Amino acid sequence: MERRDFIKKTSAGLALATGSAISPISILKNEKKIRLGLIGVGARGMGHMGLLLKRKDVVITAICDVDQNRITEGIAKITEAGYKKPQTFGKDDYDYRNLLQLDEVDAVIIATPWVWHTPMSVDAMNAGKATACEVAGAFSVKECWDVVETYERTRTPYFVMENVAYRRDVMAVLNMVRKNMFGEIVHLQGGYEHDLRAVKFNNGKQLYGGGVEFGEKAYSEAKWRTQHSVNRNGDLYPTHGLGPVSNMINNNRGNRLVSISSMSSKPAGLNNYINNHPQGGASHKNSSVEFLLGDVVNSMIKCSNGESILITHDTSLPRPYSLGFRVQGTKGIWMDLNQSIHIEGKSNAHEWESQAKYFEEHDHPLWKKYENDSAGAGHGGMDFFVLHAFIEALKKGEAMPMDVYDMASWSVVTPLSEQSIAQGGAPVYFPDFTSGRWISRKPIFAFDDRY
Amino acid sequence: MERRDFIKKTSAGLALATGSAISPISILKNEKKIRLGLIGVGARGMGHMGLLLKRKDVVITAICDVDQNRITEGIAKITEAGYKKPQTFGKDDYDYRNLLQLDEVDAVIIATPWVWHTPMSVDAMNAGKATACEVAGAFSVKECWDVVETYERTRTPYFVMENVAYRRDVMAVLNMVRKNMFGEIVHLQGGYEHDLRAVKFNNGKQLYGGGVEFGEKAYSEAKWRTQHSVNRNGDLYPTHGLGPVSNMINNNRGNRLVSISSMSSKPAGLNNYINNHPQGGASHKNSSVEFLLGDVVNSMIKCSNGESILITHDTSLPRPYSLGFRVQGTKGIWMDLNQSIHIEGKSNAHEWESQAKYFEEHDHPLWKKYENDSAGAGHGGMDFFVLHAFIEALKKGEAMPMDVYDMASWSVVTPLSEQSIAQGGAPVYFPDFTSGRWISRKPIFAFDDRY
Repeated sequence: MERRDFIKKTSAGLALATGSAISPISILKNEKKIRLGLIGVGARGMGHMGLLLKRKDVVITAICDVDQNRITEGIAKITEAGYKKPQTFGKDDYDYRNLLQLDEVDAVIIATPWVWHTPMSVDAMNAGKATACEVAGAFSVKECWDVVETYERTRTPYFVMENVAYRRDVMAVLNMVRKNMFGEIVHLQGGYEHDLRAVKFNNGKQLYGGGVEFGEKAYSEAKWRTQHSVNRNGDLYPTHGLGPVSNMINNNRGNRLVSISSMSSKPAGLNNYINNHPQGGASHKNSSVEFLLGDVVNSMIKCSNGESILITHDTSLPRPYSLGFRVQGTKGIWMDLNQSIHIEGKSNAHEWESQAKYFEEHDHPLWKKYENDSAGAGHGGMDFFVLHAFIEALKKGEAMPMDVYDMASWSVVTPLSEQSIAQGGAPVYFPDFTSGRWISRKPIFAFDDRY
Repeated sequence: MERRDFIKKTSAGLALATGSAISPISILKNEKKIRLGLIGVGARGMGHMGLLLKRKDVVITAICDVDQNRITEGIAKITEAGYKKPQTFGKDDYDYRNLLQLDEVDAVIIATPWVWHTPMSVDAMNAGKATACEVAGAFSVKECWDVVETYERTRTPYFVMENVAYRRDVMAVLNMVRKNMFGEIVHLQGGYEHDLRAVKFNNGKQLYGGGVEFGEKAYSEAKWRTQHSVNRNGDLYPTHGLGPVSNMINNNRGNRLVSISSMSSKPAGLNNYINNHPQGGASHKNSSVEFLLGDVVNSMIKCSNGESILITHDTSLPRPYSLGFRVQGTKGIWMDLNQSIHIEGKSNAHEWESQAKYFEEHDHPLWKKYENDSAGAGHGGMDFFVLHAFIEALKKGEAMPMDVYDMASWSVVTPLSEQSIAQGGAPVYFPDFTSGRWISRKPIFAFDDRY
């Protein structure tokens, strides 16, 4: 049986089962393990590798990176774990396409700089490789459509790796939302409020800090990420805040994001950092760089079912990390910052309660089951769950719990917010990437303890 | 010497001293005490009365209220405190104008329903009575101009009673801002997040709750305030959040509010409250009322110096009280909700510190001096300070620390946010109520321990 024929047969009936008009085909073959190619084995890709090497149901057969040092490290880590040396790619920017031609690769995980997410996702789906892609903001609306169009044409499984959707507190709150403990949801907040100054600048040797270099003279993320703060003003990294809360109101599944208005503060933080850094100062060439990205960017999103969502991007100022979640309905409110909940009838009127007892009581079944497996995984365990979901859905030939429409509607916030800011805060309309299917699609994210 | 001549003489030189092109005239006369008329002696007005009766430098000579019960209570309270019975007014809606004709009144305090603030302020200034007016959102841009125009023509002292500007933590933060501890300010937040459901509805007998009546059948604020939630969608009560933070960035004094974009969630909280209240339910006539006011209204404001301000109105859902302050600059951040501060170089990197030790160290001189006098005053003592500022500035013939331009630029947020929401979040431009004088006006708010 030819591979493509096999694929067509195993996908029969999936469309009805998931309530989605365009369900993925199954890429399962008669292998004992899913054979993975890792595209990008920098800091993030190596994090995934560590977790994947612990799983019995996958094997890493190929890795790709344009930095030969990363390839060397990747080979070492894989062989030290007792696995066969993977095939390697990276002789130029497009060598990943050769990885995609391997029959020994069933699925790929993309963890590369932002500009590569779309071309790699499109090429991977076209090559019939199930695709898990790291999160980012998009650069254009067209780019989001490209990924959607490629998925709909090929029906190759596509998964967006929004790990915060699996954060333990977020999943407990999702559980509480589904139990109607907050009543009808009316307002949500989230964001990415993370002092990235030592990520945006380093000394060219270490991952974080130690200097004020970025671009060619820098190392790792500062090589490419910082330049976006020079050239763009918008919510450059929207998914960690938006993804988890939009899951709670069934985005693209009976609800959708309709319009966005964005505003930014002035940019002052990065210049201040460069000028006051021991390795910086007024004589350093970077002290005169003009950053376009406002230090704090807020975006207000209106949903078709009437909810408002506020998301924040705040990465250039000294501040403790926070995703600033807020979930608010007619019966109660959760706020992340003060780790507190108020539920009418349970909490004393006008008083906060600690979230702890609620989260214990309403811990999500997934966390109950996989708490031990996730221990030690990155970002408080949630990196385990995001990989787990991709692999388990793939093994079962089921629809991906966070799919191409999620990716498109979350990532498009970046170009839409840039547009809104450029127009002084004018509201901008979200494309309906589902082409009307959001009306009948049913929620599928994390309804049981499987993935 | 005629009164008007006297006024002209005592105001000489004030314009230069305050940096304001249009300084107020002095209303000081050769009386030992400032003679006050209270317009509105409902819950709020009686609160002020209690504090005023403790002061040695004022005497309440007249009170006005259209509710005769309130007049009776007011007389009792004044005479019980050992003062002469005041003259009383309130035989109809416009009887306050007769109060304004009294020679025995130097100044008035307006604490009436929102729709009366402007006509009463205009009439009071025209009558030459120094005017302190309670806070509210305006109904139109024109209304704000009317108050400004009247002030500029009459130069009668005008004070906006934004008590939160005097909250102890807010003043400590103001102090820290002026000491440059947060560096260059880039983003600010504030709001009015207060579960007012039991204020918006009562049983017609008690001030708060006990039923789901509003309008004619209700008592006190629910008689008039709730109807605004039926007819309007915007930030109906912007000043408690906006006032204090805009003082920190010298609004109308070297800086100004330039544009605003607003968005609201759906309205769901008030209907939910009525339908689930023991005195409500589906058979109650109010269960079918359609409220226009979205439960959560967010507004993003851009300032001429590049700062962004986010303000929130959230009064129809179960939630603990919060004004949600945030003050963020290149060197640090304060957030009200978790009562925490992070200052670069002082706090551990990426970690919050309790605000308490900072607030102790940077306690505002006013609070140090008047802590005992303010003990027991409403809203945690700040009601003492707001009255104190009006009276002291008046006694000294100095410019009001929060003036007609503050009132206009804060209150206009209500009609501007209504307009923005009606236009789907479109940015709306703030009028420059100072007609260009903001460029050269100097900050005067709370620079010492006098008021």
